[in-house]
Amino acid sequence: MQENSANFPRVCCTSQELHEKPILCQDATELDALVSTMKDLMVEHVDNSRKPGALVVDYKSPEELKKLVDLELSEEGIGIDGLMPLLQTVLRYSVNTWNPRFMDKLYAGTNPVGVISEMLIALLNANSHVYHVSPVLTLMEYAVSARLAKMLGLGENSGGITCAGGSFSNQLAMITARNHMFPEIKAQGYNQFGKKLIVYTSSAGHYSIVKTAMALGLGSDNVVKVPCDDEGRMRIDDLVRLINRSISLEETPFFINATAGTTVLGAFDPLRSIGEIAKRYNIWYHIDGSWGGSLIFSENKKHLVDGSEMADTFTLNPHKMLGAPQQCSFLLARDHRIFARSNSLGAGYLFHGNEYDLGNGTVGCGRRSDSVKFFLGWKVFGIRGYGARIEHALKMAKYLAKLVSNHPRFQLIIEPPSLQICFWYIPEGLPAELEKRDYNQYKTKLSEITKEIHRRIVQRGKFLFDYAPLTLGRLELPLFFRVVVNAPSVNEAHLDELVEEIESMGSGILEWLEGEAVIVDDNRNGKPVIANIDRASSVNNNICVVRDGFIDK
Amino acid sequence: MQENSANFPRVCCTSQELHEKPILCQDATELDALVSTMKDLMVEHVDNSRKPGALVVDYKSPEELKKLVDLELSEEGIGIDGLMPLLQTVLRYSVNTWNPRFMDKLYAGTNPVGVISEMLIALLNANSHVYHVSPVLTLMEYAVSARLAKMLGLGENSGGITCAGGSFSNQLAMITARNHMFPEIKAQGYNQFGKKLIVYTSSAGHYSIVKTAMALGLGSDNVVKVPCDDEGRMRIDDLVRLINRSISLEETPFFINATAGTTVLGAFDPLRSIGEIAKRYNIWYHIDGSWGGSLIFSENKKHLVDGSEMADTFTLNPHKMLGAPQQCSFLLARDHRIFARSNSLGAGYLFHGNEYDLGNGTVGCGRRSDSVKFFLGWKVFGIRGYGARIEHALKMAKYLAKLVSNHPRFQLIIEPPSLQICFWYIPEGLPAELEKRDYNQYKTKLSEITKEIHRRIVQRGKFLFDYAPLTLGRLELPLFFRVVVNAPSVNEAHLDELVEEIESMGSGILEWLEGEAVIVDDNRNGKPVIANIDRASSVNNNICVVRDGFIDK
Repeated sequence: MQENSANFPRVCCTSQELHEKPILCQDATELDALVSTMKDLMVEHVDNSRKPGALVVDYKSPEELKKLVDLELSEEGIGIDGLMPLLQTVLRYSVNTWNPRFMDKLYAGTNPVGVISEMLIALLNANSHVYHVSPVLTLMEYAVSARLAKMLGLGENSGGITCAGGSFSNQLAMITARNHMFPEIKAQGYNQFGKKLIVYTSSAGHYSIVKTAMALGLGSDNVVKVPCDDEGRMRIDDLVRLINRSISLEETPFFINATAGTTVLGAFDPLRSIGEIAKRYNIWYHIDGSWGGSLIFSENKKHLVDGSEMADTFTLNPHKMLGAPQQCSFLLARDHRIFARSNSLGAGYLFHGNEYDLGNGTVGCGRRSDSVKFFLGWKVFGIRGYGARIEHALKMAKYLAKLVSNHPRFQLIIEPPSLQICFWYIPEGLPAELEKRDYNQYKTKLSEITKEIHRRIVQRGKFLFDYAPLTLGRLELPLFFRVVVNAPSVNEAHLDELVEEIESMGSGILEWLEGEAVIVDDNRNGKPVIANIDRASSVNNNICVVRDGFIDK
Repeated sequence: MQENSANFPRVCCTSQELHEKPILCQDATELDALVSTMKDLMVEHVDNSRKPGALVVDYKSPEELKKLVDLELSEEGIGIDGLMPLLQTVLRYSVNTWNPRFMDKLYAGTNPVGVISEMLIALLNANSHVYHVSPVLTLMEYAVSARLAKMLGLGENSGGITCAGGSFSNQLAMITARNHMFPEIKAQGYNQFGKKLIVYTSSAGHYSIVKTAMALGLGSDNVVKVPCDDEGRMRIDDLVRLINRSISLEETPFFINATAGTTVLGAFDPLRSIGEIAKRYNIWYHIDGSWGGSLIFSENKKHLVDGSEMADTFTLNPHKMLGAPQQCSFLLARDHRIFARSNSLGAGYLFHGNEYDLGNGTVGCGRRSDSVKFFLGWKVFGIRGYGARIEHALKMAKYLAKLVSNHPRFQLIIEPPSLQICFWYIPEGLPAELEKRDYNQYKTKLSEITKEIHRRIVQRGKFLFDYAPLTLGRLELPLFFRVVVNAPSVNEAHLDELVEEIESMGSGILEWLEGEAVIVDDNRNGKPVIANIDRASSVNNNICVVRDGFIDK
C-alpha cells in the first residue's frame, strides 16, 4: 500500500516522539516541513496531469481499493513520518481533476489561486458566523456577495451569503421564501395552516428543489414538474396552465424555480417571462443559476441570464464555471437583510442586530468562509479574466459540438446552450434516426452501447465523462454521453482525442451487442439487461451495469 | 492598504500577462511558486502567534476595516503579483487562532496535519457525492464514520456521513427521523397529516434544534424546552412530565435531542436515562455530541457519553475538541443505510443502489470531502494522541477553574464538566453572593461589568474569549465569561496571564460603573444601557453595547 518509503523531512513529531508527547508538536517548524513536502506532492500531481497520456484516474472498485489503501484506524498513530506514503497512495488512486480530460462534472480542476485560497482558509481556521472572529473574511463575503448581486441586477439593497453547495443555497431560498411569505409557519409549523403550498420547477430542474420540498414538509408530490420544450427549457404555456390548475384545486402557488443552466443539457429557462408570471401571480421567484449564473461574466452569453433582476433569490456557484475550489455557492437576494429577518430565531437572543454577523440569516451555526475563494479569484482574474475563461470554454464546446456534428458515427442531441455537449455514438449498422418503429428496442440497444463504451473509457482512465438519460419534448431518449468542457486547460487536441477515444472504444460494439452479448439478469435490480458474457471477468463491471441514468452536478 | 510591495516569485501570470492571456496560467510552475510563497506567509503567521505578547487580533470595527482592506472587485484583475500584499493584509487583521490565547469558541486553531489535509482536499477538488469521482476519499469517509460509530457503541451496521457543520448534522438527523417514522410526509407533506410532532431538547441545548424544527415546518413552538438542573443538565423528571403532557394534549412526541456537552457550560445530559425514556415512549433518540462526543477518546471522561449506544443518531464534530479544520462534522447512525433509505428521492433515478454513493443519503448534492481531515488526523495521532490532547485540555481547564476558585475577585459558576470555564469577575465593593434583595439591579450591574471588561480585553487583543447569558435552575444569571481551553498549545502560564489580564482590565471598573458611567440610549435598539461617557470615543464600542448575551459554538 505504501508507494515508497520516503519520509517527511525531520520534524519534532516522528511516531516515536508522538508516543512520548503526542500533542506537543504543532508549531511553525512542523508546519513548514509538512507544507513543503505537501507542496512537492502537489506540484508533481499537477505536473503529471498535463503529461501526454496521463490518466484521469486509475480506477478501482471499492473492493479492490480497500486492499490498496490502509483504512485501519488504530489506538496508536502512525505519526508524521507515516503520513507521506499514505498521501501518495491517496493521490495515486484519486481522480486527477487537473487533467483537462476530466469532463465528468460541472466542476473541473481548480487553479493555483484556488489552492492558496483554501490554504488561507485552513490556516485561519475561521468561522464566518459572527464578525468578531472573522472580521476580514466577513467583509469579503459581504463585498463579493453584494457585487455579484448587483451584476445580476438585483438592486441597491441586494447581497447574499454562501451556503454549503447549490442544494443548500436552494434550500435556504425556499426556507427564506416560506418564512417571509407565511411567517406563522415559523412558530406554529403547518398545524392548522390549511394551505397546500405548491412549488414549480421544470422537468429538467435540479433534484435539490424536490429534496428541499421534501425536507421542508411541503412534500415531493407538491412540486409540479413543468414540461420542457425540445431545447430543454421550461414551457411558459404549461407553467401558466399548471399554476391555474393549482388555483382551481384551491392550492397555493408559492415558489417558482427557474433554472439558468440545467444539469444535463445546460439549457436556460426563459427567465424574464417566468419572472413576469411569478409577479402576476405573486409567487416567490427563485432562479437556480448554480451552473449558468456565471455567464453573467461573459459578454457574449450574458443575455441567457437576462431577467435575473426579477428574481427574489438567485443561486450561483463559482465552484463550477469559474473554477473556485469546491465548495463555493452563493445565495443572493434583492434585499440582503431578508435572510436575517426571515430566519433569525427571534428578538435578540443570540445575534444582536449586527448586520455583519452573517450566520444569523442561515439555518446553521458555524460557517466555512467559502466566499474568500471567489473574492480572491475575482481580485486576481477580474471580470475580464473570468469572462475570458468562459469564452474559451464556450469556444471549446462549440468546437466539440462541430466535431460531433460532422462525424458520421456521432449524433448531437442539441446545439449546446453552454458547456455541455450531449451526443450519441451510433455504430455503423444501427440506424441513425430516433423515430424507429420499434423505438423501445432501439432505445435499449443504443443505451447499452452508450454504457458499454462509457465502461470501457472509464476502465482505460484516459478520459472521465458521464452519461445521462433525458426526456426531451415527450420522448424518452436513449442514454447519451454528456461531456462538460469547462477547464481552461482544455484545447482542440484534447477534443480531437476524445472523439477518437470514443470511436476506438466503439469499435466492434455492434458485434459485441448482437453477437457476443446475451440478455442476463442484473442481480442488483432484477431487471434484464443486455450484457456481454465476457464482462463478468472485468474488475470494473459493477460501475456501469448498476448505473442506469445516473447524472448529477 | 498594502503591507509591503513584496511580490510573488516570478510566474507566468503577472498582471500584464494576465491582460494578454488571462486564463492560460494555471500549471504546476505557478502552483509551485504560489504555494511556496503562501507557505512562507503561513509559517510567519504561526510563528508570530507563539511569540510572547502576540496579539490574537488587531481588532477593527467594520467601518475601520473597510478602509484598511481593498474590497473593490473590478473589471480588471490585479494578477498574481497583486495577491501577495492582499494576503498579508488579510492575515494582519484576521483573528490568529494559532495563538493559545484564542479561547473564544469551541474550536481553536488547527494544526499542521489539519492544514495539509485541507491542501489535499483543495488539490483534488473532489466531490464525495458519488464514488467514481472520489473513490479514495469516499472509502475514507466510510471507514472513519464506521469506526467512530462503533466506538460510540452504535453496533455492527453503524456508520455515518459528514455534513456542513453540527447544525446541518442535526438537521439531517431530524429529516431522517421524520422520513423514517412518517414516510408519508415525504411525498405528501404535512397536508392531511393531522399529527402535531413534538421535539424535546433541554433549555441549554443548541439553537440548531429549534432552527431545524422551524425549517422542517414543525414550528419552533413545538420544540419543548426541558428545564435543566443546577449543573445545566436536562431534568429527567421534567422530560417525562412534558412528554406525558404532550400525549394528554394528543400531540405526537417525535424526537428527543440530548446534548453531550452544552454550548455554554459544557454539561452532559444523562444520556442513558434519556435513552430509556425515548425507548419507552418510542421516540427518536438523537444525541447532539457536536462538542462533547469527542470525549469518547478520553479514558478519564468517556463515562460522560455513557449511553451513546442507545442513540438512533449522533452528531460529533472533530473540528472542535479534536482540532480538525473547520468544518468537520459527522452524523452517525445505528444503521448507516438509513440515510439513503429515508432521504433518497426514490427508485433508481439518480443513484443506483451503490452504497458508496454517499450523497444519496443527504438532502444536498455536491459534498466537500470533510471526513478526510478526521481520517488523516486519526491516522497520525491515533486514539491515544487524541486522548492525550483531551487530557491536556481537561488538565488546563481544571487549572483555570482552580485559579478562579481561589481568587477573591472571581467566582466560578460551576465546576467545569469539560473544557468551558464560566465565571464572573466581581470587583471589590460589589457583594459576591447572587441572592441579593434587589437581584435585578445587581444582575444588570454585574452584566455591565462583564461586558465592559470584555470590551477592554477585545480592544487590547491579547486574549479573545466570549461572555454568555444563562438561566440556571430557575435563575437568570448575570452575564459571565466563558473561556474555552481547547488548544494543545495552552499552558499554565497562559492561564495565569488570563486571570491577570481580567484583573487588570477590571481595575477601577466599579468606579467606572458608579462614578463615570451614565445611563445612555443605545441607538441600535433604543434600550437604555449603562455606558461610560468616555466610551463614545472608543472606536470599538459598538461590539459590546449591541451584544447582549451572544454566545454560540
